[in-house]
Amino acid sequence: MKATVYVRLKGEVLDPQGDAVRRALGSLGFEGVKSVRVGKLIEIDLGPGAKPGPELDARLRKMADEMLANPVIEDYEIVAG
Amino acid sequence: MKATVYVRLKGEVLDPQGDAVRRALGSLGFEGVKSVRVGKLIEIDLGPGAKPGPELDARLRKMADEMLANPVIEDYEIVAG
Repeated sequence: MKATVYVRLKGEVLDPQGDAVRRALGSLGFEGVKSVRVGKLIEIDLGPGAKPGPELDARLRKMADEMLANPVIEDYEIVAG
Repeated sequence: MKATVYVRLKGEVLDPQGDAVRRALGSLGFEGVKSVRVGKLIEIDLGPGAKPGPELDARLRKMADEMLANPVIEDYEIVAG
């Protein structure tokens, strides 16, 4: 079973990496890009033994809170399966 | 209009960052994680003037090929709208 955790900076947090990408796109001739935000995409292979359900969801949330995301500045979304 | 580009390392490319996350999850007590792969999630705000369609799709693919992903080692997926 696999799960994907999408980690995004919270809206009010500045994203210097995204700003750099926006400027670089502009200098490559891609006009009209208003903003770019860069986040993470973490794909976790839990092996064939993992059973989908509320227990697994809670475990994935704990992983995200403790390790995969920084809850002070980032939001995350978990998609299991 | 917004678009999201999901960038993932190709399957045959080693992911030292993902391996480090996997080991760290193990040492935090999360057993049974077989593998972790870390990719990027790039959210682009194209402004209200951008019109969805094949032209925009081609432009986004060009951005991904030239700047957002490294086609030698990464695959990308574009979700517009």
